[in-house]
Amino acid sequence: MTIETSDVRAASSLLAGRVRRTPVMRADENLWFKLEQVQHAGSFKTRGMFNQILAAPSLPEAGIVAASGGNAGLAAAYAARELGVPAEVFVPETAPAVKVAKLGKLGARVVQVGNEYAEAYAAALVAAQSSGALFCHAYDDPFMVAGNGTLGLELLDQLPSGFDTVLVAVGGGGLIAGVIAALPGVRVVAVEPINASALHSALAAGQPVDVPVSGVAADSLGARRVGRIAYDMAVAFQTPSVLVEDQAIVDARRHLWDDYRLAVEHGTAAAYAALTSGAYVPAPGERVVVLLCGANTNPADLA
Amino acid sequence: MTIETSDVRAASSLLAGRVRRTPVMRADENLWFKLEQVQHAGSFKTRGMFNQILAAPSLPEAGIVAASGGNAGLAAAYAARELGVPAEVFVPETAPAVKVAKLGKLGARVVQVGNEYAEAYAAALVAAQSSGALFCHAYDDPFMVAGNGTLGLELLDQLPSGFDTVLVAVGGGGLIAGVIAALPGVRVVAVEPINASALHSALAAGQPVDVPVSGVAADSLGARRVGRIAYDMAVAFQTPSVLVEDQAIVDARRHLWDDYRLAVEHGTAAAYAALTSGAYVPAPGERVVVLLCGANTNPADLA
Ligand SMILES: Cc1ncc(COP(=O)(O)O)c(C=O)c1O
Ligand SMILES: Cc1ncc(COP(=O)(O)O)c(C=O)c1O
Repeated sequence: MTIETSDVRAASSLLAGRVRRTPVMRADENLWFKLEQVQHAGSFKTRGMFNQILAAPSLPEAGIVAASGGNAGLAAAYAARELGVPAEVFVPETAPAVKVAKLGKLGARVVQVGNEYAEAYAAALVAAQSSGALFCHAYDDPFMVAGNGTLGLELLDQLPSGFDTVLVAVGGGGLIAGVIAALPGVRVVAVEPINASALHSALAAGQPVDVPVSGVAADSLGARRVGRIAYDMAVAFQTPSVLVEDQAIVDARRHLWDDYRLAVEHGTAAAYAALTSGAYVPAPGERVVVLLCGANTNPADLA
Repeated sequence: MTIETSDVRAASSLLAGRVRRTPVMRADENLWFKLEQVQHAGSFKTRGMFNQILAAPSLPEAGIVAASGGNAGLAAAYAARELGVPAEVFVPETAPAVKVAKLGKLGARVVQVGNEYAEAYAAALVAAQSSGALFCHAYDDPFMVAGNGTLGLELLDQLPSGFDTVLVAVGGGGLIAGVIAALPGVRVVAVEPINASALHSALAAGQPVDVPVSGVAADSLGARRVGRIAYDMAVAFQTPSVLVEDQAIVDARRHLWDDYRLAVEHGTAAAYAALTSGAYVPAPGERVVVLLCGANTNPADLA
């Protein structure tokens, strides 16, 4: 399944007034940062979640259901609260208390099930089916993808002289699929941690496959298997895919604070790490945008 | 002494390619943040310091001298390093080791003298006179003021539909003086902590007077006496002056992190605190810009 630019444009209309138009800063001669981490609820996921709910035939009375202990859950809870619908977020019993508390603060009912994400996910699907609530996928849903892609349309507007390349961190692929759809004429590069390489492994295998996930960015980029939409889009657009080491991610995150006073989470720093580690080397004069997409992070270690 | 818009324009030309054009984000219907905290060396002071050095008849071979344990010192060290001139920064013996180390990392020679700022300042002046180095004032210098004001010209360009008001944190007044000069048609509001109210007290007294300084923002806003230029500009432009409590500053800083993932220092949060505390209440429809001007902060307490 692929998503078209027109789907992203439709999402932009639906999202008007709901999400922040996030700023772009020039970081160097041919380098820009899109500061999406200042988005409501701290990540781009708010765009996709709003779009999933607003694109539904009617605001579901039974509310919405999501499965995620991370940014997707926060975004779902935030969007539901703003739209005045109830939200239920399923997380594993192992989810850290601070994340559960954050979801609760956003007004979501948190349900803790099973030992890992897959069990929480399955339970969420069952709950949605029985209550009639809208199940909101964290990445592999066409409206999620189109909503996420709206930040790509903003880029076109914000950089009217153009740009050649966007570096995007990939977990389940809902973000990169949206960016590819929004920017068909631009080179969109997928960046993943070596030990959470769902898209890279899928492209190598010729189909989505399960991968082991671990490392500093696993909480945001640690999808076991890349989404079907992202896989299909990456194949259709021959998306280049690069991998970065955990240490490069840690260093890039620190660099963003030390040199720019931008505090981001490890998953976000991965995109920048592709540049700083040399995993992606732009050609001379190539105009590169690094997407900074989330800051649900504890900034204490940047002290 | 007053500074003209043309002085700020001249500074803009000198600074081209030296400082970051910092982004603006829309935070609400009638509210924008200017994200100057992403400037080189973490604050707007880099603009003024570059301008002081570049406006000198020739790059001083003996280098530059500054007195400051805070953002002005960092900015001076950064600008000097980029321009290839030696920098000597005078700080009190009581300056925290981590600040001294930071200055050293930027290549400055750090001289520790006396128990408080005034002694370091006096020693810096003597040193500059004897070596012929350029003394760079932290705020009360026309080129410092004009350099700082360049961020005001950026605002005009970044918000072409206009804005009514800018909220600016005031220490010695070098920042607000520059913003007033850059934006003669705009209401520029001075914000100070109750316990570091150099400008407010000067306006009440009819001349710059010494004030006691303490509190969470004293490291950046704790000038004992407001600069002459800032005082004259504030009188000439009838600059409104408001005060905020320390607790309001702490709350505003937390709010900027919780809602926007912007990590700033207390001195910067003071400007936003004027809004969140109600010290400044915009009229209906008034378009307000809050200047976020520094992030040389330990983000650990935002965890
Ligand atoms: C900050 C951040 N960046 C990137 C991603 C990856 O997004 P996706 O799962 O859509 O590939 C996530 C996913 O949670 C995230 O939270
Ligand atoms: C972050 C920050 N904001 C505001 C100020 C106040 O600037 P000025 O001393 O020019 O009034 C300072 C001064 O150091 C600062 O560091």
